[in-house]
This record gives sequence, C-alpha cells and structure tokens, in this order.
Amino acid sequence: LPLSASILAIGDEIVSGITVDSNSAFLADALRAIGIETVGGFSVADDENALVRALGRALTDADVVLTTGGLGPTADDLTTAVVAKVAGRELSSDEESLRRIEERFRSRNIPMPANNAKQALIPEGATIVPNPTGTAPGFICPLNRPGPVRHIICLPGVPSEMRRMAMETVLPWLRERAGAQRFGSRVFSTFGLSESRLDELLAGAIDPAEARLSFRAAFPRMQTRVVVSGSDEREIEARLDRLEARVRERLGRAVYAIGDEGMEETVVRLLTEQGRTLAVAESCTGGLIGSRITDVAGSSRVFLLGVIAYANEAKVRQLAVPETTLAEHGAVSVATAEAMARGIREAAGADLGVATTGIAGPGGGTPEKPVGTVCVALAWEGGRWSKRYDLGTRERDWVKRMTAQIALDRIRRWGLGEVEDPD
Amino acid sequence: LPLSASILAIGDEIVSGITVDSNSAFLADALRAIGIETVGGFSVADDENALVRALGRALTDADVVLTTGGLGPTADDLTTAVVAKVAGRELSSDEESLRRIEERFRSRNIPMPANNAKQALIPEGATIVPNPTGTAPGFICPLNRPGPVRHIICLPGVPSEMRRMAMETVLPWLRERAGAQRFGSRVFSTFGLSESRLDELLAGAIDPAEARLSFRAAFPRMQTRVVVSGSDEREIEARLDRLEARVRERLGRAVYAIGDEGMEETVVRLLTEQGRTLAVAESCTGGLIGSRITDVAGSSRVFLLGVIAYANEAKVRQLAVPETTLAEHGAVSVATAEAMARGIREAAGADLGVATTGIAGPGGGTPEKPVGTVCVALAWEGGRWSKRYDLGTRERDWVKRMTAQIALDRIRRWGLGEVEDPD
Repeated sequence: LPLSASILAIGDEIVSGITVDSNSAFLADALRAIGIETVGGFSVADDENALVRALGRALTDADVVLTTGGLGPTADDLTTAVVAKVAGRELSSDEESLRRIEERFRSRNIPMPANNAKQALIPEGATIVPNPTGTAPGFICPLNRPGPVRHIICLPGVPSEMRRMAMETVLPWLRERAGAQRFGSRVFSTFGLSESRLDELLAGAIDPAEARLSFRAAFPRMQTRVVVSGSDEREIEARLDRLEARVRERLGRAVYAIGDEGMEETVVRLLTEQGRTLAVAESCTGGLIGSRITDVAGSSRVFLLGVIAYANEAKVRQLAVPETTLAEHGAVSVATAEAMARGIREAAGADLGVATTGIAGPGGGTPEKPVGTVCVALAWEGGRWSKRYDLGTRERDWVKRMTAQIALDRIRRWGLGEVEDPD
Repeated sequence: LPLSASILAIGDEIVSGITVDSNSAFLADALRAIGIETVGGFSVADDENALVRALGRALTDADVVLTTGGLGPTADDLTTAVVAKVAGRELSSDEESLRRIEERFRSRNIPMPANNAKQALIPEGATIVPNPTGTAPGFICPLNRPGPVRHIICLPGVPSEMRRMAMETVLPWLRERAGAQRFGSRVFSTFGLSESRLDELLAGAIDPAEARLSFRAAFPRMQTRVVVSGSDEREIEARLDRLEARVRERLGRAVYAIGDEGMEETVVRLLTEQGRTLAVAESCTGGLIGSRITDVAGSSRVFLLGVIAYANEAKVRQLAVPETTLAEHGAVSVATAEAMARGIREAAGADLGVATTGIAGPGGGTPEKPVGTVCVALAWEGGRWSKRYDLGTRERDWVKRMTAQIALDRIRRWGLGEVEDPD
C-alpha cells in the first residue's frame, strides 16, 4: 500500500485569506512524484486549540502529516510547541540550529533579538531539517503511537525556504522510508496540444501498468508527468529514458522542455547555443514577449531590441512599415506583421525579426477581424513566415498571453529548422 | 458574537496539488469584509467518505460552511449528493436551473449531454445561487439541526464563476443574516510604505474601537483594509468617507487607488483624463512596463511607443543616447537614463518620456554598481527628473518588478504635478 499524507497550512494570514496557500499544492505534487498520496489538507489559524484539533484530525487520516508555517520567533508561532505536546515530547534547544541562527544575524551585523533563540527549540528525538536560506529550521518528529510511518514533519511557511528544505531533506527522507518500491518521475512541457489530445496520443504508447500519467494545465503551459516505480534509481532512470523516447516520438516538437523550464528559457538557451540573435516588434502583446525573454538571465546575448508599436505612426516611423501596407491591409494583417518583422530585424541587425499584431479586445473588433484575431510573423535572411490566428472572443489578458506563447513557440521552431518560408 | 465560517475546497486536483486553491482565500477575505470570521479550511478529494467526514468536521467548527468544487456533470462530482445526505434532504430537479442549462447549450448549437441534467439537481428546500457565466448553479442548503445560522453553501470550483456568484448572491444573503450589525470596508492601495510604516502612520488616526485595520502585501502592492460596522448602509458609508479623509491625510500621495485598481490602471486613467501621452524606453525592465500599461483596455490612447533597448547599440541607434554619455557614465547611470527618456519622448512625439536602466542580475554587478542598482528618468517639455535606486541584491525578477512599479509610480506622481525638475 502506498503511504498517505495530510498537509496542514498554519497561520492566520492563510485562514483569513490574506495569503493564498501555494505550499500545500507544491508539497502534494512533490509527494505524488515519490508515490505518496495526499488524502486531504487543512488550513488552521494561529490558535492552540484549533491546531491541536487539526493535528488530531490529520493524524486520523494519514500516515504522515506535513505542516507549513508557525515556526517564526513571535508568540503567535505555535507549531513547535503544539506538535511537541501532541507527540508527548519535551522541547530542547538544538545547539547547531542556535549557532546557525546566531551566525546569520552576526553576518548581517544585526543584533539577534532574544526571541529568535526560540526557533532553535525542537521536540526531543526529532530530526532537524536544515534551512539554508532562513532562520527557522524544520524538523521531523516521531510519534509515540502505533502506526506504520507515523511522523509529523514541520517546515516554515516562506515558500522559497520551504521548497528547498522539502526537496533537499524531507523528500529524500520520505523516499527512504516509503518502502522497497522507489518512485521516479519526468515532466514534459508542451504547447499546442490539449489535455484530451495528449491523453489520446499517449494512451496507446504507455501501458497504465508501466507508468502513471497525469496532466497539469497552467496556461499557456501544459505539463505531462510520467511516474514509474522500481527497486532502484538506475532501473527507474532507465525506465524513464525509455518512456521519454516514446513520449517524444508521439508528441514530436510539441514537447519544448523536460522539467520546469519555461518556453522563454528554452528559446534563450536554444538561440544562445546557436549564437543567433533576435529582435521583436510587438503590437498586441505590448511588451510581454520582451519581458518574458528578459526574465531569463543571460538573455542579453540573444535579445538585441524590442519595439512596442501600438500606434500606426510608430509602426511606420520605427519599423518602416509602408503606409500603403497599413492602408491596404490594415494594422492587423499578415502583411503588416511581415513588414514589422522585416523592419525590426533591419533596425536591430538581428538574425531573426519577430512581430505580433492583433485585436486583444475588449474593443476594436469588426465582423472581418473580431476580437482574438492576431497575426504573427518571422523574418530572417532570405526568408519569412507568417500566420493569422483566430483565437476567439476571450479576455484581453488571455489573448496577449496566448499570442506571446505562439510567437515564442514559433521562434523555437525556427531555431529547430522547422519554420519554412511559405512561398 | 460574529458568525464563523469553515471553507471546503473539493476536488482531486486540489488535494493532489495539480491546482492551487485560490478560492478559499478569496472567500475568507470577502467574508471578513462583512464581519464573518473564517476559522479554518479543508481540502477534500472527490471521495464520498472523505467528503462526509470533512463536512462533519467543518460543521463542528463553524456556523456556516462554504464549499467550492464538485458541482460538475461527471460521476466524480459528488458535492450535491453528499450535502443532501448530510442535511437529510432529498434531491429534486430545479426547473429554472434545468431550463438555463439547456438554453446555454442551445445558444451555442451544442447538443446537451444527458449528464448535464444532473447539475440542476438541488437538495429540497435549498435556495438557488444563479450562475450567470457557467452551467452549474450553486445553492444554500439549510440543515435540520439546531444552531444559529446553520447552512451549507455550495459554489462551483471555476474561480471566475465562483467569485461572481459569491459577490452577487451569497455575500448579500449572509450579510442579511449576520445580525443587526452591518459591516462595510474600504481598501487603500499604496506604494512605497512598508506594513510597519503604514501601521505607525495610521495608528494615531484610527481608534481600534472605530474600525479594524488589516494589511495585505501582494508585491509590489500593499493594501490596507478598513472595516467598520454600523446599523445601516448610509451610516457605514458616512463612516468610511470620514475614515478615508483621515487615511488620505496621513498617507498622502502614497495612496494610488481605492479598491482593486492596479497602478497601471491608475496611470492610464489619469493620463487619459488629462489627454496626455506616454512613451517608454526600457532596459532593465525589458518590456514589463509596456506590458503592464497595455494590459489596460484603452491604453492605446495614452501609450504611443515602447523601445526595449537592452544593448548599448540599441540605446544609441533607437534612442539617440550619445556614445560619449555611455562611455563616460556607463549604461547604468542617471545620465544614460535621462538621455533615453529624452530620446524616446522625441521618437514618439509624446508628452512624457520614461526610461529605466539597471542591473537586474544575477550577473553584471560591480563594486560601484552592484546588482539592484537601477536608474529611472522622466523627460517632458522643458523638464526632467531622474534618480538612482539601490534595491539591494535580490532575485532578477524582483528587481524588474520593483523597477517597473517605481517607474509607474513616478509617471503617476508626474501626472499629479508632483515630480519637479531637479535643476
């Protein structure tokens, strides 16, 4: 039987809706990848009675309970004390943790407030989960009760600290105890295929007995996770490699990355490897493509210039779009998009010029060119590509995001030699 | 005593971490504004036993239970059936809801799948919560049990549908029953003041007996909510108006909006009212300012041109930054930022030119100009403004976002006549 987990998010700010709890989803997703099933979640205020009750309920439901939050230095941070009480253990100060906390303040030339010493108090017999980027360590507290793998695992609520501690210490610890069967997973990011299409394409390729498939849509990205089990890491990796080959064969270039790499990272990595440069002329995406590309560290080697040309005059003056093209075809047309792509490429002296123009809405639509009509064009030495898309009447923000993703995907496909001159 | 609420998020995709539950935070925040305190939250899989158990626990904790999710047409959508069972009520088909669901399919020329009729099944005696934008109606189900305001309120899991149904039907219904005391709230969005500074500034101005203050940091925005109570709407509005005057007196122009308006919306609204135009030259923000401005519908009246000039050559060629300025002061300098602002203003023929340049990191820092050094400049007819900021070593993304917010705030302050020519 697989292990089961309950997850508690602790803190007034979570319960009252001031903060959205993303920690629980992160942990559940990470647990699933090592074969541990989350059976439910709780959010609990900074209140002793509520916390005791929630821990009791969580322990009724599952083998392992994970908590986030309530490990801070102030009086309303109760997690450690309540967990010690529920586990029937005394608190004692962990010397190594105290030293680290003191060192952290010393290195910043800040005197340590007395109540930070509280953060080194840990239930006796618990295993420390080091926190490399913050003050509060976490801990794994055994329970003096019958049951298979009965532990309460406590982590801080700051997402960046929590994630790192979970990945570096807690998940390996759990994987170790999850039994002889080990689990491993690989994630494929795709663009352009719906969940049902992915399911259809992969159904014949992967036997459910061989691997579990799950899909996660986080617009505009779609992720497919393949989870396999085996008796050791090498066997698992070999299985995942074989499955990857089959997934790639079925999905082809729709797969743009393995793992969490975003489309903009894929594009910057690919063009950097190829030593090619890029310039972008954005109308309906309004700077979003440039912003996404420049989110990637090192993008300055690839990205030479962006022009956000909302107004027709800007298209003419900055991008040398002929006024006749605008007059004949309109600002939202493949002809204008192509002229913009050529114009930005020449202005920047880049290998590739990319352009978007379209009607993001809510206003500006006509019967021939309703909201959601967008044109994307690419221009390079001796070639060009362009296409009109009808994305349908959607939110302005959705049209912008989708158009940016289409353009980035087209840059990627061009880098892979796929985009052919339509002439 | 104020009413208390428990919130349940129902669905395998929530529990397993495929979807982050933002519905619970939205509801808790909205309930707080009408004086109802959320005491805890649960996330539950699409599993009958788990759902019965979670509902039982939620009803133990609070007066009212709100659920989201599990109202779909498929077999794993169990909420309605389980709630009816817990409430001891039969299910019956609501004619009006069925008619609406059928009409929805008819208007799209799609034959209605038989299982969608299930979405019109509602526990007998429950009040319908209409869903103007989706198929599944919600409902408010009374319980055959003692207790003050004992109801289970069920809403769909799609955030946009849920939010509208909560605001239009559920919250007015709850407010009606929350007793003689009514609550009202007003939210102030500010930039540039920390939570502790806001607390300090407002502490003397607002007596805790008069209004409750709470703060919500959603970088780069900080929101202060003031909640008051009274016996009727007019009294509450008058109180909120008096408090607003005091808040504005204390916080001055740090308040950029009332309610949820974003800084980019404030800027576009202000410049539209003034009939003034804008052009932006972005180096370290890489298009983010343009993208945020063009997120606002109608921004084309205000925003004429953006240039993303990452490379020095682009600064010289597109923005006419003198090569001597770059050589003498470097790309990251107030002199370069000022030249960029002048250059973009002239290129676009805009009333205001705005520029950013800086070191977003992680590479590129030097002892004199470490990561987090950014310069922002404004240029207008007969005047200019510029400033160097040292934002400290932070994530690349944080530096970008903070710089964009600083620039937008400076545009706003310029529109309000605040930014003076430093000469």
